[in-house]
Amino acid sequence: MSARAGIVVTGTEVLTGRVVDRNGPWCSEQLRALGVDHESTVVVGDRPADILAALRWLADEGCSLIITSGGLGPTADDLTATVVGEFQRRAMVVDEPLHMRITAILARLTARWPSVDQESIAAGNLKQATIPEGATILEPIGTAPGLVVPPPDGGDGPTVVVLPGPPSELVPMWEAAARTEPFIAATEGRVAIEQSMLRLFGIPESEIAATLRAAAGAGIAIEQLEITTCLRRGEIEIVTRFTPDRQALYDDFANFIADSHADTLFSIDGTTIDQQLAALLTGPPARSIAVAESCTGGLVAARLTETPGASAYLRGGLVVYSNEAKSSLAGVPAALIEEYGAVSEEVALALAEGARTVLAADVGVGVTGIAGPGGGTEEKPVGLVWCAVSLSSGESAVRKLQLPGSRQLIRDRTTTVIMHLAAQLLREQSS
Amino acid sequence: MSARAGIVVTGTEVLTGRVVDRNGPWCSEQLRALGVDHESTVVVGDRPADILAALRWLADEGCSLIITSGGLGPTADDLTATVVGEFQRRAMVVDEPLHMRITAILARLTARWPSVDQESIAAGNLKQATIPEGATILEPIGTAPGLVVPPPDGGDGPTVVVLPGPPSELVPMWEAAARTEPFIAATEGRVAIEQSMLRLFGIPESEIAATLRAAAGAGIAIEQLEITTCLRRGEIEIVTRFTPDRQALYDDFANFIADSHADTLFSIDGTTIDQQLAALLTGPPARSIAVAESCTGGLVAARLTETPGASAYLRGGLVVYSNEAKSSLAGVPAALIEEYGAVSEEVALALAEGARTVLAADVGVGVTGIAGPGGGTEEKPVGLVWCAVSLSSGESAVRKLQLPGSRQLIRDRTTTVIMHLAAQLLREQSS
Repeated sequence: MSARAGIVVTGTEVLTGRVVDRNGPWCSEQLRALGVDHESTVVVGDRPADILAALRWLADEGCSLIITSGGLGPTADDLTATVVGEFQRRAMVVDEPLHMRITAILARLTARWPSVDQESIAAGNLKQATIPEGATILEPIGTAPGLVVPPPDGGDGPTVVVLPGPPSELVPMWEAAARTEPFIAATEGRVAIEQSMLRLFGIPESEIAATLRAAAGAGIAIEQLEITTCLRRGEIEIVTRFTPDRQALYDDFANFIADSHADTLFSIDGTTIDQQLAALLTGPPARSIAVAESCTGGLVAARLTETPGASAYLRGGLVVYSNEAKSSLAGVPAALIEEYGAVSEEVALALAEGARTVLAADVGVGVTGIAGPGGGTEEKPVGLVWCAVSLSSGESAVRKLQLPGSRQLIRDRTTTVIMHLAAQLLREQSS
Repeated sequence: MSARAGIVVTGTEVLTGRVVDRNGPWCSEQLRALGVDHESTVVVGDRPADILAALRWLADEGCSLIITSGGLGPTADDLTATVVGEFQRRAMVVDEPLHMRITAILARLTARWPSVDQESIAAGNLKQATIPEGATILEPIGTAPGLVVPPPDGGDGPTVVVLPGPPSELVPMWEAAARTEPFIAATEGRVAIEQSMLRLFGIPESEIAATLRAAAGAGIAIEQLEITTCLRRGEIEIVTRFTPDRQALYDDFANFIADSHADTLFSIDGTTIDQQLAALLTGPPARSIAVAESCTGGLVAARLTETPGASAYLRGGLVVYSNEAKSSLAGVPAALIEEYGAVSEEVALALAEGARTVLAADVGVGVTGIAGPGGGTEEKPVGLVWCAVSLSSGESAVRKLQLPGSRQLIRDRTTTVIMHLAAQLLREQSS
């Protein structure tokens, strides 16, 4: 590919992790879709010298396009526009029509905050309307305009696209940026790249490494595909990028994986287990679901309701942290808890059955475990979780987990197991 | 500060956002705590040339220490050790004692996967035991060793600390890395830096910009503090870094903020609203809480149970997506839903009271709204959310929100409002 791009994410809050960067990855995906090769993302704090150094490095690396995010706010630590102006050797000028448009936006916004200091608003406004001369303005979504800043007149460095930090502003501004003449010029020679994903569950990563070696041994030229494998939320993802002329090679590779791992490969088309479970519940046949969860404390219900339209099948959820709630809400007999303990196969199944019965659903889910950091014993250590799924037809499935890691990890990983356990049981029932 | 460091995060899955990088931010915080100035984090894919370019740039920028994460796994796309060896001009050699130790670890691990291919395991094992000559080994937490690789013999470039990608392996390995002689030598001249955080809720960021200008106008030398402000989950965070000799200046600044924003400043000691609400519930007086939530679908309960020990006060949660569940589980009269609609002040309050009553708690929380993307009307658009908190003493608080953004954003932001609404009401009751 001849078009090469870099991303500069600015903000001390991102560098130090108080805010998780979503812009770098999102822009990376947009670049890939456009056929632009994305080399690297540099995260820097709110220091002009560091932002400038990052721009210069990416230019030296041969990037014809640089995307920046952040540093366009009204406060004095927001410096990106000025630094990019310096980088492109362009004077900073107030754009009067832009100034008036931002004034109008602010008048509307500050109506919500009647006590606001008008003078400070005006100062921030003027700052946001001051832009490198010759830049193309991307209309503000919030109050900050984006900018497409071409190389110095007569120079041939990269074009810099300056976007705001909030993803809710950056995302809608992207399309406008990509339509500008300097952006198109800077990405000339781009080549579409396909990306396909295989997802597996219940297999160690080293097995995939072995399969890749076996594929190469079987004569599949995998070195001509860009393959990366990673663990994500307890699943293995194999992502492959390739130019369209290598589609047949990719198909051979994907078939080899499917033959080698028929029992653990659950997605060949990029769908997630969440989408697959949603489709199984939506039907036909349509089936409703209900949840009773202890250690996950609402995360299973929250994960089910992340999918828009979940109201079509989710009857409801019960967060039953205490033994009293397990009995009173989910109808788990106190004697059962007494006999086997709250964290047990029997109680997990009773929670699943209870959720299903109390909420009149076709599918019931039960979770009980010890997420830690306290509460573990020798017999029932932190990380022990029982998951159960119960169907109104009488079938059920139970899984015992012993998960490593933090409270957060144990809770999150459990939701992944539940999604798979429910989907598997529904698939078996359908087939 | 004379000790300067950079971070290189490797992995196409991180560059493209399939995995969120937690290592860069975490290492950044460790560096700050040690008094090492962290300039930037470079995220690159699994391409040797790009990893090498990032190392060279950070060296050119004057970093005496570079931390890498990722690329130490058994698969062929894990290349970091080799690239760092090339960067430091050190031959790659098999460390036989390390090889034997990894073999022992693998024998233990693969006992769980009886069908595993021993030959592929051995190949990955040998790869992980091949290290740059002269590197200090950091014992594996998983199967990958970490490495501290000094500059070429006779050279004076940066020391590179090579750490594995999984945070569960990287984090425990950090301490060992920081104790090695080359690490200590590379961070000579470090100066401790204090970091303090102020948190505000219910104020626009532009107001903070105005206050910063006013503080400067009042003679507080804020340019001697490194101040960054950012919006996070609906709150504003003001983070200030300063050398210990400027503590008095910081105190003046913090007092100025406190005087200017007494009504919205809720944390001056770094505590989160989650911790504050947990402390208010823990007491004395101890108070129990219960939740009935619709559009947040379990996220409020999940957020409450993120805090270890939540079982002491959380009676339980009800996820009542459907109108039937609102009535049957939370006791909201069907007539009330009929009259005002499911998304209304009346139903939010009834959910809060219902949760409190059904679960015999002191504090009840109710949430109902339209998270979208569908389901909105002109009268009740997407983003309209009613939040309510009800106390057994009879007091209650209700808040109407009209949130912008995606389904995910609306649901998450609502949980923040709930945390503040409950904490405020409990604080008022206590005072």
